[in-house]
Amino acid sequence: MREQRPRYHRIADDLRGQIERGELEAGEQLPTEFELVERYEASRNTVRLALRRLTEEGLIIAGQGRGSFVRRSLTPAVWDWSVLESRARHKSDDNGDQWASIVAESGRQPRQEVRVSIRRPPTEVAERLQLDPETALTVVRERVRIVDQDPYALADSYFPEELVRGTPLMLPEDVSAPGGVLASVGLVQARYRDEITVRMPTRVEIEKLSLPSATPVAVHMRTGYDENDRPLRVMITILPGDRHVIRYDVSAE
Amino acid sequence: MREQRPRYHRIADDLRGQIERGELEAGEQLPTEFELVERYEASRNTVRLALRRLTEEGLIIAGQGRGSFVRRSLTPAVWDWSVLESRARHKSDDNGDQWASIVAESGRQPRQEVRVSIRRPPTEVAERLQLDPETALTVVRERVRIVDQDPYALADSYFPEELVRGTPLMLPEDVSAPGGVLASVGLVQARYRDEITVRMPTRVEIEKLSLPSATPVAVHMRTGYDENDRPLRVMITILPGDRHVIRYDVSAE
Repeated sequence: MREQRPRYHRIADDLRGQIERGELEAGEQLPTEFELVERYEASRNTVRLALRRLTEEGLIIAGQGRGSFVRRSLTPAVWDWSVLESRARHKSDDNGDQWASIVAESGRQPRQEVRVSIRRPPTEVAERLQLDPETALTVVRERVRIVDQDPYALADSYFPEELVRGTPLMLPEDVSAPGGVLASVGLVQARYRDEITVRMPTRVEIEKLSLPSATPVAVHMRTGYDENDRPLRVMITILPGDRHVIRYDVSAE
Repeated sequence: MREQRPRYHRIADDLRGQIERGELEAGEQLPTEFELVERYEASRNTVRLALRRLTEEGLIIAGQGRGSFVRRSLTPAVWDWSVLESRARHKSDDNGDQWASIVAESGRQPRQEVRVSIRRPPTEVAERLQLDPETALTVVRERVRIVDQDPYALADSYFPEELVRGTPLMLPEDVSAPGGVLASVGLVQARYRDEITVRMPTRVEIEKLSLPSATPVAVHMRTGYDENDRPLRVMITILPGDRHVIRYDVSAE
């Protein structure tokens, strides 16, 4: 019986199997194109199509003229969103420090770069903060969250400007206060709505997070409300798939 | 000043801008390669590189010999995981029907195909069910969840075989019972741990879910425990990014 699938599928299948069985290990260099041409008795073009297929699956990373390597994941950072905010209330923070303390507890070095700006809110934020995107102002705290030397996540918090005017939340640096910065300016979050979507990264995200090819991201959008259901904040966190686990503990009660 | 970025980057930027501004609409066909060659006074190869870049970003879909189209997302299904299980307890189900009722409420037609098998658990499942992957048996309910005619998600539930032996959970069909099927066989879930990761889909997932290129998936893994912290079930749901929103409502208390 004649094999129906294209030749490059079969080469990709063979290499994929070697990766899945660990015969090719994370970080290991694959044989060169020339070696693969010889091994599979295939054309260079067929070998390239097979490698491209594995690249698109996120299994290998094609180095620029340096051959291909089995993809290596970074040590995953676990985001326990179900406790993140309650920890914040006990420790201190504007939702950056409690992340930092979780990272530090795992023996790694957290750091963040903060930029503060005043902007018209994008549509998806304006909707959630119940603001008019044409006229309203938001204070945006943009953070790049870094673990050891690697950029791990982007976190942008949007606050209605009139709620935080003149508060430490407008300082372009890490800010924290006992009980939480929002609480320290009289804003108490009573509940959150989290929305998680998944997509390919934008060019800006690829650059800021040094993402290898075929690395999708989770977009975690948390809207915080006070006890009167007034929205206080939207935080958008961009979490690359190769370095994050999002966790929730849920009670069935 | 001479422009430093490669030519195909600039062409991709221009087309991306048109998509973002809505000048090229979802589902619309892009100009042909030949037209783009003329418009940008570029080589065919340069145009192809630009189109490939947009394909990898998930913005366009390359049809086989039929030109390229602006990607169209399916109507998103919202998974409200924070209420999904408590609804189940009021309605009925083994965690399929309450999903079905949410879909039906939005005026669309839910359906699922169920396959039941008995298998050694994969490592990640064995760990969570506290089973020995070499000797333990699990009953696996594999479901393809379909909305109208489109496959939307894959959901595989793993139960320790000794817990569900001889129960309706072993029937190869939709099963439901007042208060939930697990409860009807004496198993009450008191809490859950959800773990969400993001990756590119496997070949099998691409086929089962008819995924266009560059469509990442969320892997939602829910482990259910009884009140004595005994794990009862692991459910792994594969949610393509172009048709799902995962939602949690969290109380700050």
